[in-house]
Formats: sequence, C-alpha cells, structure tokens
Amino acid sequence: MHILVTNDDGITAPGLLALTSEMRSLGQVSVLAPDHNWSASGHVKTMHRPLRVRETTLIDGSAAWMSDGAPSDCVALALLGFIEEKIDLVVSGINPNANIGHDVTYSGTVTAAMEAAIGGVPGIAFSLHSPEDFVGTIDFTPAARIAHRIIHNLSTQGLSANLLLNVNIPYLKDDEIKGVQVTRQGLRIYRDRLDRRVDPRGRPYFWIGGDSPTAKLDEGTDFNAIENGYVSITPLQLDLTDFQEMDIIRKIAW
Amino acid sequence: MHILVTNDDGITAPGLLALTSEMRSLGQVSVLAPDHNWSASGHVKTMHRPLRVRETTLIDGSAAWMSDGAPSDCVALALLGFIEEKIDLVVSGINPNANIGHDVTYSGTVTAAMEAAIGGVPGIAFSLHSPEDFVGTIDFTPAARIAHRIIHNLSTQGLSANLLLNVNIPYLKDDEIKGVQVTRQGLRIYRDRLDRRVDPRGRPYFWIGGDSPTAKLDEGTDFNAIENGYVSITPLQLDLTDFQEMDIIRKIAW
Repeated sequence: MHILVTNDDGITAPGLLALTSEMRSLGQVSVLAPDHNWSASGHVKTMHRPLRVRETTLIDGSAAWMSDGAPSDCVALALLGFIEEKIDLVVSGINPNANIGHDVTYSGTVTAAMEAAIGGVPGIAFSLHSPEDFVGTIDFTPAARIAHRIIHNLSTQGLSANLLLNVNIPYLKDDEIKGVQVTRQGLRIYRDRLDRRVDPRGRPYFWIGGDSPTAKLDEGTDFNAIENGYVSITPLQLDLTDFQEMDIIRKIAW
Repeated sequence: MHILVTNDDGITAPGLLALTSEMRSLGQVSVLAPDHNWSASGHVKTMHRPLRVRETTLIDGSAAWMSDGAPSDCVALALLGFIEEKIDLVVSGINPNANIGHDVTYSGTVTAAMEAAIGGVPGIAFSLHSPEDFVGTIDFTPAARIAHRIIHNLSTQGLSANLLLNVNIPYLKDDEIKGVQVTRQGLRIYRDRLDRRVDPRGRPYFWIGGDSPTAKLDEGTDFNAIENGYVSITPLQLDLTDFQEMDIIRKIAW
C-alpha cells in the first residue's frame, strides 16, 4: 500500500510527523504537505497561479515534499502525477483540534481527504480533540496509533475508491479510550463575534473572534462520541443534495 | 426583505451588478463582496489575520462595501454585525460558469451561501452556464431576471432559515428557457492535468491545467437540467454523512 500523508497545519507540524511515523509500518509512505498553516482554508483548487514544490525533510530526517498550495492542492498535485507511483490512500492530519459538524467544509484537514475521494483515492482525515492551546505540548502518539489501527482494520476488508472518512480522536491515553463509534455528522455551534478595532492610522479593521465553537451532544453524532471517550469515525459523501427540501421546493408553481 | 449580495468574482464583476440591480425591486439591498477574485477558493473562515472593509460604489453609482476577505468571510462579516440591520436573505453571484456536482465545496459562490445557512439566514448561489471565455461579453440580465423570479416565488411561501439553494441557469434568452427543474447534485468529471514547467532560474513549477470539467448527464441532475435548457435549482444541506457507508463500516470488528 502506498500512502500519501498531508495536513493543513504545515510540513513542520508534530501531528504530521506522528501520523507519518505510524503509516510507515502499513506500507510505502510519501509526504506532500503545505509549507505553512492553512487552517479553516476550505476546499481550494489553485488554478490562477503556479504551485511550487520543494524537497525537505521531516524532523526525523525522512524525505518529504512541501508546497505553497493548500492541503487540497497538495493532494491534487500528488494524484495528478507529481508523485509518479500510484497512491492507494490519502491520510490527512493529525489536526490538533476536532473537526466536527459544519467544520468539514471549512477544514483543510477534511478537504484534503475530500480531494482524494474526488480523485478516486480513499481519503481519511484525522483530528485530535485536544484541549491544549499550544500545539507543542500535545502528545499525538496515542492518536497516531489509533490511525494505524483504523487503517489496518479498514484495509483487511478493502478500501473503496470513494471512501471518505472523518475521524476524530479524544485526547486520552490508550487505555482510557472506550472504543470506536461510527457516527453521523453533528451540529457545530459557532460562537464567533466580530471584533472592531482601529489601526495606528485611525482606520477600522475587523477580527472574527469570539469563543471556541461547541456542538450539540445529540446521540450518534461525532461530538457525542468524542465527549464520551470514543473514537468517532464519520463516513462522508460529496452529494450535498437535500432530498427532503426537494419535495418542498417542487411544490412551488415555477 | 433585506438582501445581502455577494460573489466570488469580486466587487467589479458584471454578474454582481446585474444581480444587485434585480434585487432592488425585492427589498432593501446591501452589497459586501470581495475586493478581488476568489474562484475555487473554498469555504474560508479567516481568523489568523484581520479583515478590512472599505466603502466603494458599483458602476451604477450605488453604495457597496468591499473586503479583502473571502466570499464566506464577507457573509460572516455582514451577519456578525458589520451590517447592523438584520439580513433576511443572502444571494451570491452571478458566477459566469456553472457550479455543479463536486464544484459546490470548491466554489466561492456556493460557499458564501453555505456561510449564510450556517449563520441561520437563507442563502442562494446563482451561476450562469456561460460558454464565454471573456466575462465582459456575457449578458447577465436574463439570468438576473430569473434570480428575481425564483426569490419572488420562494418568498411567497416563506424562506426557511437554513435554506441553501444552488441555482444554475443556462445561457439562453428569456424565451428560450424551457422552465425550472428541481434537481439533485450530479457528478462532475474533472479533466485536470498537471503542467510541469521550468522558471527562468531553472527551477520547476506546476500549473493545475487541463480541459474544462464536464459532468455526467444523469437524469434528474443539475447538469442534465441546464444542458436541456432548464434552470436548475438544487437544494443543498450541510450534513455530509454517508449513511449507507455507515452500515458497511459498522460491520468491522473495531
């Protein structure tokens, strides 16, 4: 199995290193990740400018590539032939914060996996529900071991070409994790506030700030699972059609 | 009704002007759009830097705001209080190219409407299936009249707070349009190719190029409708859970 590893926090992120290390025992690994942080960057296809790709090494000395493109660009580059050998699986992460509910369309971690699925390669996004503000103090190794186990279990039954999984992992030690739950996407509750400020030249500027998002704890959802100590695996698909709303809209005399 | 108009082509785009003009007869209109083109920019929430908003005028002399944020940032700014009056509807467009199939998560036009729906305000994305390469020669007025009619018809039955519609309009004269079809999201077929080049200093760079995307013509889809001369209205929702895949994944001995 040839696994491409990417992320949205950038090539130097410790979550990428932990995930890459665990993937090595599952097959051949290529790393192509952004050269800077792209959190909440969304699903990007960069066509208006060229993309650069440079050779680099991870902190463990292993070879990797970094690009000035978005996470989804890194996946597109790899699948379109920058990496010549066929890629069997794209993994993205490990993000230091959960990607649940409506986060999935904003998230660079998840949209990288989406790009894989659109390209006909299974994609899995891994995110850690860490309470830490400073990424340097987070231990990603238990989550990376879980990523390993999930891929091992999935690959025994064969990975379908359009498989797209959003995995969220609670920030617990190995023996504190209660198990795995296959969940549905829950509802994020954003608590953004607009902060108006004035620059040194007297002109206004605006930060999107506010409290960290929370989410509804509905039974069966991603957030419910991780809050209760379970690893959450949410299978996603890219057909956003609202079939219930179709029936309502069809009743209008167009 | 207070309507916010935005787009992903930027404040000077003729599609925005045509849409804004038609919205005026439906209610109060505010315009807040990006100060440059954000095509295929995805669903962005800019939190790592402040956003600027500047007063400007459209080519017809009407007041508008432009921001250095993404289309979804423009909507977030407006809903979080930059625009003080309550907003009842967000419309985005008119994009000069169709947004069908998998385009919806890449598209700045559609993700602006998504941002509205997440914020509890109905959002509608309008895109024109124009064959033209040069946006300056496109006549957006028939599509803008259709946008007017769609919103008029919807508002007679009341707009639900999480309504999210992706509207695609064929590039035809008023009397050539066959009608409206309420459709499901179809399958895009991307024909991207990676173009390797060498810069004047001998270093490689890469363009994501190739042919324009096409799509499957399956009955009932967005692409099928516009190819057959119908306006396509696809209701979208933001729960991407693949419930069929859940059953498969649940069978694994986790």
